[in-house]
Amino acid sequence: MENKNILIIVPMNDEQRARVQQAAPNCAITYSTPNDVTEEMVQNAEIIIGNVPAEYIKCSPKLELLQLNSSGADAYVKDGVLNEKTLLANAAGAYSKAVSEHMFAMTLAIIKKLHIYRDNQNKCLWQDEGTISSLSDKTVAIVGLGDIGLSYARMCKAFGSYVIGVKRTVREIPEGVDEVYTNADMDKALAKADIVLSIIPSTPETRGMFGKAKFDAMKDGAVFLNGGRGDAVNQDDLLEAIKSGKLSAAGLDVTVPEPLPADHPMWKEKNIFITPHIAGHYHLPETLTRIVNIAIKNLGLYISGEEITNKVKH
Amino acid sequence: MENKNILIIVPMNDEQRARVQQAAPNCAITYSTPNDVTEEMVQNAEIIIGNVPAEYIKCSPKLELLQLNSSGADAYVKDGVLNEKTLLANAAGAYSKAVSEHMFAMTLAIIKKLHIYRDNQNKCLWQDEGTISSLSDKTVAIVGLGDIGLSYARMCKAFGSYVIGVKRTVREIPEGVDEVYTNADMDKALAKADIVLSIIPSTPETRGMFGKAKFDAMKDGAVFLNGGRGDAVNQDDLLEAIKSGKLSAAGLDVTVPEPLPADHPMWKEKNIFITPHIAGHYHLPETLTRIVNIAIKNLGLYISGEEITNKVKH
Repeated sequence: MENKNILIIVPMNDEQRARVQQAAPNCAITYSTPNDVTEEMVQNAEIIIGNVPAEYIKCSPKLELLQLNSSGADAYVKDGVLNEKTLLANAAGAYSKAVSEHMFAMTLAIIKKLHIYRDNQNKCLWQDEGTISSLSDKTVAIVGLGDIGLSYARMCKAFGSYVIGVKRTVREIPEGVDEVYTNADMDKALAKADIVLSIIPSTPETRGMFGKAKFDAMKDGAVFLNGGRGDAVNQDDLLEAIKSGKLSAAGLDVTVPEPLPADHPMWKEKNIFITPHIAGHYHLPETLTRIVNIAIKNLGLYISGEEITNKVKH
Repeated sequence: MENKNILIIVPMNDEQRARVQQAAPNCAITYSTPNDVTEEMVQNAEIIIGNVPAEYIKCSPKLELLQLNSSGADAYVKDGVLNEKTLLANAAGAYSKAVSEHMFAMTLAIIKKLHIYRDNQNKCLWQDEGTISSLSDKTVAIVGLGDIGLSYARMCKAFGSYVIGVKRTVREIPEGVDEVYTNADMDKALAKADIVLSIIPSTPETRGMFGKAKFDAMKDGAVFLNGGRGDAVNQDDLLEAIKSGKLSAAGLDVTVPEPLPADHPMWKEKNIFITPHIAGHYHLPETLTRIVNIAIKNLGLYISGEEITNKVKH
């Protein structure tokens, strides 16, 4: 394959840069950062590694491969961003450990009432908040059985939960999952679950999926968690379900909009536990290592004319 | 064995009361509660199930067996409480699931910074708090390898931690533990650990064990947790170790005194996470079931003249 201009805006150490060199021997490699990258750099590249601003791409006719550092690709599949021949790959899988562990920590914190005890601590209040429960008594429904959902499933299973997965199509029952339902049968899963985790991407089908009808389908006192995309949830309906006691608690790492405005009523609802979309990104250092590994692997595959992995389109 | 007066102040349902009847067929059984129990009831009993006020016992010459509902027995081994022939049994083991899960939830919450994010939520603040870590990167030292310590060990192991146990005597390496040190070599374990859990009872040897010398022996930035007894920790030294940054965080379910006074400086230290000694007790309903099972088993053993389990003294 002829020489290529490669633009990389994912941070890489010397060892990783040497591997890039090895994967793409005769290429011109430009390293930049999300803050410093320019439209000119983007327009000049045949291969880009990292989420460059979508508005810089403008269907660039040179661009052959865009390897994102994110799992979501929403901004790049819109009309007018990529030309038809551009290959688009994401970094799905890189975030599974970080996000699943964060959502699991949040789940445990909620069922052990740690968020309530932390509120009490801030009031210097030594107060017994009553009964808690164990994951071993729980049925957990996971809506979205990708890498993150499956990793979360295995953790719940290790703590003795009964785990139900919900996904678009059911072929086999993966390890760590006891039952799988299709999206069409989701309400059956919700009716059985004490804990429901939404870990689905943002698509036209998933927007607003968790509204009154779905909360009504859940068990009284269920706990709802969202670690996917904020727009899967109708936040007014969620607030109502929490205030009415239909749901006992919610844990959200994603909201609409982000940042959540300071005057949004969800902040002040003690049975909603909010973290500011930090489960993923590079907060767990290993995530970046995983992203770089996916990117270098795909670079090598593409340069040597082989099929790439993690393909989003084309 | 002749008929006995049995006093029970642990709550039992009908099924459990039927099992008591079966275990002690010809005995007179009085059910009461910790609030309603009287000194007369205590003085009249040959067998007591539950932590009656120690001051009611006064070396009662009738008392043959005191089966506690607690794991600790401090209040009952003091002079002037039990007569020499009274058998004393605790409910160790009943609390292992509840306490280990609570301390594990607290550990995960701390390394994922959930307590800090909850503080931010209370300020309606959407703010990234930077890097977090995973238990898979951690060495965990557990001081006290009883049922609780071992259960906590297995959870850490399931999340990929390297687990070091510290106990009085080392015979074999239990499941879920990678290395075991004796108390005499504790500093070697502390020097290796990113996370240290104290889960030891209150004895003359353990009081004040975790003070400046032990905190100095830990890694810079270590996390310290106490789920055992508050008096194992020198709280002034702990505050200093947190304020100086020697320790990055602490998680305490036990303090001195309890309740911790509202003006105690530990309440306001954001890197200390305090819960009000609620890991155990009956907060997890299964704990009570376990306590009742231990008590009924011991009652049956004692009535039929066999050796009881969970013996503290005699």
